[in-house]
Amino acid sequence: MDAYKELERRFARLNKLNEALGVLRWDHAAMMPDGGAEGRSEQMATLELIAHEQLTDSALGDLFEGVDASALDEWQSANLEEMRRKWVHATAVPGELVEAESRATSRCEMIWRQARPDNDFERLAPALEEVVEVVREAAAAKAEVLGCSAYDALLDQFDPGMRAEKIDPIFDELAAFLPDFIDEVLEHQAKAADPIAPEGPFPEAIQKGLSHEFMEQLGFDFRHGRLDTSAHAFCGGTPDDVRLTTTYYEHDFTRALMATMHETGHALYNMGLPKEWRYQPVGHARGTSIHESQSLLVEMQVCRSRDFMEWAAPRIAEAFGASGEAWTPDNLYRHGTRVERSLIRIDADEVTYPAHVILRYRLERQMIAGELAVRDLPEAWNAAMQEMVGIEPPDDRDGCMQDIHWMIGGFGYFPTYTLGAMIAAQLFAAAKEQDPEIVPSIRRGEFGPLLSWLRTNIHEKGSSRSTEGLIEEATGSELDASIFEAHLRTRYLG
Amino acid sequence: MDAYKELERRFARLNKLNEALGVLRWDHAAMMPDGGAEGRSEQMATLELIAHEQLTDSALGDLFEGVDASALDEWQSANLEEMRRKWVHATAVPGELVEAESRATSRCEMIWRQARPDNDFERLAPALEEVVEVVREAAAAKAEVLGCSAYDALLDQFDPGMRAEKIDPIFDELAAFLPDFIDEVLEHQAKAADPIAPEGPFPEAIQKGLSHEFMEQLGFDFRHGRLDTSAHAFCGGTPDDVRLTTTYYEHDFTRALMATMHETGHALYNMGLPKEWRYQPVGHARGTSIHESQSLLVEMQVCRSRDFMEWAAPRIAEAFGASGEAWTPDNLYRHGTRVERSLIRIDADEVTYPAHVILRYRLERQMIAGELAVRDLPEAWNAAMQEMVGIEPPDDRDGCMQDIHWMIGGFGYFPTYTLGAMIAAQLFAAAKEQDPEIVPSIRRGEFGPLLSWLRTNIHEKGSSRSTEGLIEEATGSELDASIFEAHLRTRYLG
Repeated sequence: MDAYKELERRFARLNKLNEALGVLRWDHAAMMPDGGAEGRSEQMATLELIAHEQLTDSALGDLFEGVDASALDEWQSANLEEMRRKWVHATAVPGELVEAESRATSRCEMIWRQARPDNDFERLAPALEEVVEVVREAAAAKAEVLGCSAYDALLDQFDPGMRAEKIDPIFDELAAFLPDFIDEVLEHQAKAADPIAPEGPFPEAIQKGLSHEFMEQLGFDFRHGRLDTSAHAFCGGTPDDVRLTTTYYEHDFTRALMATMHETGHALYNMGLPKEWRYQPVGHARGTSIHESQSLLVEMQVCRSRDFMEWAAPRIAEAFGASGEAWTPDNLYRHGTRVERSLIRIDADEVTYPAHVILRYRLERQMIAGELAVRDLPEAWNAAMQEMVGIEPPDDRDGCMQDIHWMIGGFGYFPTYTLGAMIAAQLFAAAKEQDPEIVPSIRRGEFGPLLSWLRTNIHEKGSSRSTEGLIEEATGSELDASIFEAHLRTRYLG
Repeated sequence: MDAYKELERRFARLNKLNEALGVLRWDHAAMMPDGGAEGRSEQMATLELIAHEQLTDSALGDLFEGVDASALDEWQSANLEEMRRKWVHATAVPGELVEAESRATSRCEMIWRQARPDNDFERLAPALEEVVEVVREAAAAKAEVLGCSAYDALLDQFDPGMRAEKIDPIFDELAAFLPDFIDEVLEHQAKAADPIAPEGPFPEAIQKGLSHEFMEQLGFDFRHGRLDTSAHAFCGGTPDDVRLTTTYYEHDFTRALMATMHETGHALYNMGLPKEWRYQPVGHARGTSIHESQSLLVEMQVCRSRDFMEWAAPRIAEAFGASGEAWTPDNLYRHGTRVERSLIRIDADEVTYPAHVILRYRLERQMIAGELAVRDLPEAWNAAMQEMVGIEPPDDRDGCMQDIHWMIGGFGYFPTYTLGAMIAAQLFAAAKEQDPEIVPSIRRGEFGPLLSWLRTNIHEKGSSRSTEGLIEEATGSELDASIFEAHLRTRYLG
């Protein structure tokens, strides 16, 4: 038996199991009545357990050792590496520690759901301390096998191969740039009249129709996907059946429309992954940084641009049967790119968002390194907000308790949001340069040239390259914060 | 380790896996875009394979042998028996034969999907012959372990414990009764004026609202279930998250409404199963005969009754904003209980339906016994239709090729439709006698008393009793065709 082929067979099975889980998760968020929750968590836990058993099967170690690496082509080698990475992440941590982590994060999330509205950090702290403790231990175990630092091992779960030493100089540059830049943007913005907020209500059915139309226009193939409603927008399902959800607000159509465009970026990536590697790790999306680059490229680089609004504004106005000053491309563009200092990351605009992220990245690194105690988090958070965003949270509810990530042990995820934003800027700059048709076609609502560039340079490469490799092959240079900064300058000071 | 407890643990896991499959199947029928079909079949095949592996794990044999039966209570003993039955059905047939059956039925179904519209029995025959051959072999293998006939082993898959020797006398009695009775009913019906067919179109949204309202009224709990649309009505999902689907026809609201009431009967059964045995075989529905009795009790005994129509007719008329002669309780009742000789089982009315079933039962028994060759099926079918229903099919398309059951190897299923109809009549007669409030409350659209009786006498007993045991405990007597006949006489000659 060929060890590599046997590994492929096993990972194909594992992937099909994970695809089934993807459908169950989508259903949970978009379709399931509340009364199904208990049963659903049993079903999902069972599939997750089976998947875990398959990935930690003792035969895998021998199979990895038995592979004749010289007989593998480039994609197979990359596939083997990704298989091994998944296996290391699954096996490096002792079973009891996995269980302890699961218990600690479930408990912390539960406490957080009550303590946050109560603004009660004291109550949360012991549970979060426990989470930090078990995450540090698990990270250390993985770090030993991966040969990296504990924090890098956490990063590696989300953006395989990414390391803090690569992020640090880029984030440091951005951190030095942002505070003054935010001041400048706000000053510049104050010079012009405020954009007019379009007046609602905006009926959900019309918003949904508009989302559908824009998705299709961008290249979302509804023979291979759906658009539904859930409490939080997300992109789930499988590559040949992408399940996108969004949430509609009757008083503000921009939120759902832009959230849908964002998720469409994720969806197009999933839909464009290499079909011949569908069930193998190398056929998957590269990681959360590249994934976020695809959603932000579509949302921030394209759909919030003045070029896109020239095509989109008349269509939006027509859909709502509206007209007047509020509905001009210029007004809608300015309305969609408004900057303000705010407390909450998920509501932040393109300019202040990276500031929110960088402070979280720095704080979580300190926590994992044992340099920041959970009880000192509120103070450190508030100081960082003052420094990076320029405002101080009035309470912990809208301060260090606002995000779920740490509560569920998701350390190492935050930086990928801003890496994604920077990669998006760099990819879009390269794409525009390589194909001068991209911008004029966007002005006509045609996304074929852009999608074609993304397919070739990102989507079809799956996980056959590292995050860095993808960026360099597509753009000819390493990730470079100055490209993102130039984009911000052009858009917000132009 | 307690062998029984370990068996419970393993079957709980298996059941959760099967529940996940239930969600995937519902999604496939109700939500999935066409482009997801290939991936979905891979996901489902993977889960089915894992479930099969778990059920045929070599450790199970030892565990069954190791159980101390004297230490088990009544429910545990029944559970053990059901576990063993599932295990026997999974292990009695050699792997190659299982594969051969899967290949033969897939092939036959594919050929049938084209040969039926072409009315080409010649083309179908070889594929169907192969199916009959492998089904006979598989049935023989199961029969040996179960200690019953080959046909009984097939029956046992759908209605555990049911045997042909129990069905024969009941079906013989009904077969002797039906042909003359159908003549009588048609004569009787001809004496009165034809009911008026309500005139459409009936907008889908209104039909859906009405279905929803009636489901809720009958006791369907929408915190634990949904109503959606699919090509064929069915009841799927899990006991705490029942997924019901139906199909709407704009020209005829009765079809969807009655199909929904039928599926609601199935749904109420699933929702009422014993919660403490949720993940064990003994906590499942008893089998297809009892399941069909629940759907037919709700549809035929209740919702097509004059009593129900007194409450329902004004509500239906109001929903469609209609009035006049077509919308009286009497007219809608007569419209919904119209009898006619027809070719197609699934379109048949309550009176002729059992005739369609009995002829299939007799023919499939002959095929499994090797007494009827597939090539002789059309002739035998047409003769039986003439004898039982009183008309002769003009072709095989609407004759012996009309149903999918045999094409996919589903021998042994047909009789459970009519067993269900008879059980429904017997249960409803007993319920009405035991609780005189049931009928008056139905006239007021209140189903609490009936549902409460069904919960106590059927639903909450799960599979802790045999089909016969359930009937006898609930009604005080064995299954008795004369009760069903009396129901038909009262309704159709009254």
